[in-house]
Amino acid sequence: MDPKVLAAMQPYFSDDFYNPSAPYAPAIVVRRAYEAAKDSLGHAIGAKGDEIVMTAGATESVNLAFYSIGGHIVTANVEHHAVLEAAKQFEHTLVAADERGFVSSAAIKAAIQADTRLVSIALANNELGTIQPLRDIAEVVRTEREARLSRGDHTPIYLHSDASQGVGQLDVNVARLGVDLLTLNAAKVYGPKQVGLLWSASHVALKPQVRGGGQERGIRSGTENVAGAVGFAKALELASEHRKYESDRLGTLRDGLESKLVAAFPQAVLSGHRKHRLAGHLHISFPNLDAERVLFALESRGVLVATGSACAANKGTRSHVLTAIGLAAEVADGSLRMTLGHLSNEENMAKAAEYIIEEVGREYTRVQS
Amino acid sequence: MDPKVLAAMQPYFSDDFYNPSAPYAPAIVVRRAYEAAKDSLGHAIGAKGDEIVMTAGATESVNLAFYSIGGHIVTANVEHHAVLEAAKQFEHTLVAADERGFVSSAAIKAAIQADTRLVSIALANNELGTIQPLRDIAEVVRTEREARLSRGDHTPIYLHSDASQGVGQLDVNVARLGVDLLTLNAAKVYGPKQVGLLWSASHVALKPQVRGGGQERGIRSGTENVAGAVGFAKALELASEHRKYESDRLGTLRDGLESKLVAAFPQAVLSGHRKHRLAGHLHISFPNLDAERVLFALESRGVLVATGSACAANKGTRSHVLTAIGLAAEVADGSLRMTLGHLSNEENMAKAAEYIIEEVGREYTRVQS
Repeated sequence: MDPKVLAAMQPYFSDDFYNPSAPYAPAIVVRRAYEAAKDSLGHAIGAKGDEIVMTAGATESVNLAFYSIGGHIVTANVEHHAVLEAAKQFEHTLVAADERGFVSSAAIKAAIQADTRLVSIALANNELGTIQPLRDIAEVVRTEREARLSRGDHTPIYLHSDASQGVGQLDVNVARLGVDLLTLNAAKVYGPKQVGLLWSASHVALKPQVRGGGQERGIRSGTENVAGAVGFAKALELASEHRKYESDRLGTLRDGLESKLVAAFPQAVLSGHRKHRLAGHLHISFPNLDAERVLFALESRGVLVATGSACAANKGTRSHVLTAIGLAAEVADGSLRMTLGHLSNEENMAKAAEYIIEEVGREYTRVQS
Repeated sequence: MDPKVLAAMQPYFSDDFYNPSAPYAPAIVVRRAYEAAKDSLGHAIGAKGDEIVMTAGATESVNLAFYSIGGHIVTANVEHHAVLEAAKQFEHTLVAADERGFVSSAAIKAAIQADTRLVSIALANNELGTIQPLRDIAEVVRTEREARLSRGDHTPIYLHSDASQGVGQLDVNVARLGVDLLTLNAAKVYGPKQVGLLWSASHVALKPQVRGGGQERGIRSGTENVAGAVGFAKALELASEHRKYESDRLGTLRDGLESKLVAAFPQAVLSGHRKHRLAGHLHISFPNLDAERVLFALESRGVLVATGSACAANKGTRSHVLTAIGLAAEVADGSLRMTLGHLSNEENMAKAAEYIIEEVGREYTRVQS
């Protein structure tokens, strides 16, 4: 977490720990802080605070969106596990991404059926960094909605996006994206873990999965996580403020690292969209190499990389994203996924490049001998 | 939150913020801390860490228990909103508590049907402090289970208890309570908000409401709240350690306050079980008084009391618990609910008694003039 985020949260851990639903004045002060945090979150995405349901993270938000809308769902084979697993509860179509992990609006259009109620595409892919053409997809959804209405068919169709992965680097204004529902996660912007939100436009009716005291307009009961909301609001405010600068800075650092690695290993395979890619992401594969050995060698030198998505990594299975984009097994198994962030700078990125080149080189020598 | 709890959580907000599912060593250290926290939580209730699903609080835990077991449910009319609202999703019977808010095992027995799959009774009532006869109820459930098995009927029947309210003052060993599922909430033991757990015995199958990366044995996906689990474990450890002492201390303070108030206002009505009541709870009603006016007067003098449960208080409706125990409207509307805790001591309780007597007296004078 950003120290500024933690500082913003601190008062709500102890001094201002009152239940926001309690009737006395100190609790009302806490309630106002909570509502102000939601307003601030709303402001960051061009929406109102009371259109937001606070959740325990992106996974819950996605599940709530799917549970609320149901029906036939269109999503893509490179989506996060939360989306794929939630989709399995309903009739659904998985659109195939191309070899860059890119999901075209034409493919979405082709997958929409007469009974499709929800299209769900992440703003950016969490493994490859590929940014999806959300506005084009929104246009497809809007056209379908209008076509239905013009023939008197009132079956709704909504667009949901999990924008957790792109939020620190991309514009997440809901009107400009053209979405009806949006998921965000605090931890992805240096906010607290297990804090997320689901925004939905006023024309979308959500259905509670967790019932009780009636918090969050009855959509998600439970005593509010005041510190979490305040921290998330601060984190998103900071991310929005530095978005342009940080995105440029990370892009420059990432491109530098990428050039050095490709120069050292011309056989390396870069994955993800060349142009529409998050500035902080680098996905590079070294064919015929055991990426896991490189990961451990780098780890002991202070360079933390991943080989697949964190969720898949523990299960000894190949990343479903790499399979979906058709990466050959001997390429996929040599993949390193790197994400740059606030703590990345010229100095430590130069070191990282040096160490990665040494360790990948050492591993190639070992394999060939 | 207890300062010791916050101190235990601090490292996991920043330095050790890694996703516990990430493959590198610093993340594995975080995963171990998370698992150790779950083991510690398990230890506090006489169970194993891997029988616990971490949730965003008691409301989610209750909903997950009900969603998993379903079928006909037996619960009581004095239960928390989370239980009552979750029960509404299923066929259910509400057992009537007596005028003390006590739910007898005989009443539970009478309500069990051939298709009852779940009995859910809180360990202690959150408004009145009445402690329920959970072991007797467990015996009823066990007898029913054995009767079914003896006639070859394999319809399961389980006992769930939300022990959030009693955990700091009562024994919550799952074997001694005889429950199959147990809900706890961190905030009730000076731990963080939006952190809870659902324990279930190994013979109970839970069904995920939130799907995704497969965390919590696939029952509740989403990146783990490491700081939250560590804080909860520390809070429960402290609560268990001081339970006996704190319970005696609070009981003495509460009894002192109660005696003074009853002596000053002989017409006052005490609610809740005289004997089986949480040591820190006092529910007292001043007939024909507007409790809300007293609440505001006391608040300005630093004494924070409630008039109904926090969830109900904001809605301008009479507490469903007070209605359930048959308190007349003119008595219910003059109710003050007080809870003592770590910060209560002889000095501030003496002040509280003085201020309450003054303000209640002032209000009676105003009403009578």
